[in-house]
Amino acid sequence: MTQAIEQPKTLSTGAALGATFSALRCRECGETYELGAKHVCEDVCFGPLEVVYDYDLIRQRVSRASIEAGPKSIWRYKDFLPVASDNPIDVGTGMTPLLKADRLARRLGLRSLYIKNDAVNMPTLSFKDRVVSIALSRARELGFSTVSCASTGNLANSTAAIAAHAGLDCCVFIPADLEAGKVLGTLIYNPTVMAVKGNYDQVNRLCSEVANTQGWGFVNINLRPYYSEGSKTLGYEVVEQLGWQLPDHIVAPLASGSLFTKIYKGFQEFVKTGLVDAKDVRFSGAQAEGCSPISQAFKEGRDFVTPVKPNTIAKSIAIGNPADGIYALDIARKTNGNIEDVTDAEIIDGIKLLAETEGIFTETAGGTTIAVLKKLVEAGKIDPDETTVAYITGNGLKTQEAVQGYIGEPLTIEPKLDSFERALERARTLERLDWQQTSV
Amino acid sequence: MTQAIEQPKTLSTGAALGATFSALRCRECGETYELGAKHVCEDVCFGPLEVVYDYDLIRQRVSRASIEAGPKSIWRYKDFLPVASDNPIDVGTGMTPLLKADRLARRLGLRSLYIKNDAVNMPTLSFKDRVVSIALSRARELGFSTVSCASTGNLANSTAAIAAHAGLDCCVFIPADLEAGKVLGTLIYNPTVMAVKGNYDQVNRLCSEVANTQGWGFVNINLRPYYSEGSKTLGYEVVEQLGWQLPDHIVAPLASGSLFTKIYKGFQEFVKTGLVDAKDVRFSGAQAEGCSPISQAFKEGRDFVTPVKPNTIAKSIAIGNPADGIYALDIARKTNGNIEDVTDAEIIDGIKLLAETEGIFTETAGGTTIAVLKKLVEAGKIDPDETTVAYITGNGLKTQEAVQGYIGEPLTIEPKLDSFERALERARTLERLDWQQTSV
Repeated sequence: MTQAIEQPKTLSTGAALGATFSALRCRECGETYELGAKHVCEDVCFGPLEVVYDYDLIRQRVSRASIEAGPKSIWRYKDFLPVASDNPIDVGTGMTPLLKADRLARRLGLRSLYIKNDAVNMPTLSFKDRVVSIALSRARELGFSTVSCASTGNLANSTAAIAAHAGLDCCVFIPADLEAGKVLGTLIYNPTVMAVKGNYDQVNRLCSEVANTQGWGFVNINLRPYYSEGSKTLGYEVVEQLGWQLPDHIVAPLASGSLFTKIYKGFQEFVKTGLVDAKDVRFSGAQAEGCSPISQAFKEGRDFVTPVKPNTIAKSIAIGNPADGIYALDIARKTNGNIEDVTDAEIIDGIKLLAETEGIFTETAGGTTIAVLKKLVEAGKIDPDETTVAYITGNGLKTQEAVQGYIGEPLTIEPKLDSFERALERARTLERLDWQQTSV
Repeated sequence: MTQAIEQPKTLSTGAALGATFSALRCRECGETYELGAKHVCEDVCFGPLEVVYDYDLIRQRVSRASIEAGPKSIWRYKDFLPVASDNPIDVGTGMTPLLKADRLARRLGLRSLYIKNDAVNMPTLSFKDRVVSIALSRARELGFSTVSCASTGNLANSTAAIAAHAGLDCCVFIPADLEAGKVLGTLIYNPTVMAVKGNYDQVNRLCSEVANTQGWGFVNINLRPYYSEGSKTLGYEVVEQLGWQLPDHIVAPLASGSLFTKIYKGFQEFVKTGLVDAKDVRFSGAQAEGCSPISQAFKEGRDFVTPVKPNTIAKSIAIGNPADGIYALDIARKTNGNIEDVTDAEIIDGIKLLAETEGIFTETAGGTTIAVLKKLVEAGKIDPDETTVAYITGNGLKTQEAVQGYIGEPLTIEPKLDSFERALERARTLERLDWQQTSV
């Protein structure tokens, strides 16, 4: 362990010269604050704080051409992001493929389906690399030497890795029952790892207390207004990769709800600054049945979210008390979208379906998205002709436990041609049986 | 299983109109062959066949600007690749980050070190996605409906995934003792998997027999002349990402030796076609001590490679009878490079060193490269001022077994502030003890 735990140096909290962002503002009451490490409206209403941008300035500065000439990472959208430095932490995060998924589309009965594939995001194979690249760049500007997070796994991987690259000390908090790949995929970077006996919501509450006592930069607590802006790049990239057009419909997983709301914000900002023509985009959200507080509220027509205790294999999205749940609800309703949930068995089928048709191995969150996509199509809630984008947010190598026992096995053979030929004959026979059973 | 095993349709083997490649030619005797599924000079000397290009035509067609305007994948270099179709299989493979590794450089005592990070290559997180994208695109052109490979793991992942996306039937062959992540990371795409009781060299021999009897396209056997060309893109990308300059020194792992020779060929082709100025580049190769036939030949001054029986944790590079070993030897010698090998313990330390300093989690092959890089620097065989590029070829999430037990553990705590504070105090005490022990 290498972290030297210490109080941050004097924080620079004012607006930087030439920056496109100038303050924090409460989403609920509009109260403004300096650009420090702060995430709730503590003077007035305890609402969430958001970054305030000067969109006129952004509009003057950016064009499609200027973006296309930028780096092949999220930093090509730097004028839309809350980092002042000309030298942010760039480890190649972002600009993941938008794959035309024709084989999956045919299987589902869609005609224009795309997969936004953050299962291969850099460096740690989930969309969290986007938000962490922003948060740690901002943490450095604010003078923090130790960074931290409350995580369901992917965020810990990303914070530990990018902190290692940037030379920041790091302490992460995870629920003690996480998947082995997510724990090892954090420890390898040598941060301090606190495994908390409890679920994510308990980890999160503990971290709020720690943030108040240790003087650390918690990417998803006191740095949350900066951090969450990173998810807007999932909106920007899809617009650019569709040839500067908005899609008709997006399907994304819902954990805290933040990702969903920021994709929406990203689309809006590109319209507002003249980069893309306005169009109605439908927003549909995906949850696991074992942790579906937002889906339940949606189906019951509520405008509030009742916390639940998570019980699902989709641990990376198992947030029982989602901070941005009500905003996600609002977006799904006003865009004529839907929020749906699926069982663990459907999630596993979703993982397999995406792998078999498109060669993309996603973790449980991605399986949830694909299973909900399928369910919505079958219910007639996605038009076959809509240009639909499904967001895949993490890699299947991190949650191998979820599919073990549900996929085929190798045929073990001797290194001899006749042994191979016998095995192949067995495989063909089994396949014919499968086929006969399926067609009966 | 979905493959329908059948003979390939009539193969098209002649040169395509407008293509930059026209024939296969024996590397040893120069005999030429039509552009079919063939990899050895069976009429004359049994030497390996290579693709013949028209470099005058390439020079007329490509420029730095035309490449920069191309897709963000290996297909930006299409004129240098043996695929005729305007519609090759593009799943976003290539254009992985070239990361300036300042923290690792300082630790090693270098001043200009870069990591070419194929641990985040798309879609299956190793450099094999490059060669497979080429091989399957060519397989489709040649009329194959079933593709196959002999693999140490990464190649099976990649062949199965890209075949799934392209809708090709797939049967892969692996040694039965592979790492769990590599087996599961193949099965998820639902190919037929043959687990052979034997080492890679035995798997490879079996596959050569199968290739002669089944009429399948084996990416690294009968399609090998096309397949191996994909590794040239690791040379092209480094040149482009260094701002159209050659590096001074590269360090890459040696398995069959093919990767090494193709990076060399990539640099030469860019010089030959006027895209970059000529310069001497030193080529150094990395092997695991437990499978170091090329390193042994190098140290003993031999120009032939004596096969060995592999015994190392670095399974993805454990090829005891390397097909391109003598060509790799030749390149290391004529460029004033070196070939070195390291123990399994040094490989694990190499994995940890790269993770802690740069936030990149690589598999055992990458650990081998970093450990050899360190050994060469310590032996004075890399000048601190040389611009050095180390090639990281695969992701650590696939070989988790290798580091389990060699990394730290989480500190398990209750979801309470005082439990956290006691754990933090323990961590600090341990860290001080570590520090005291280190400094004694």
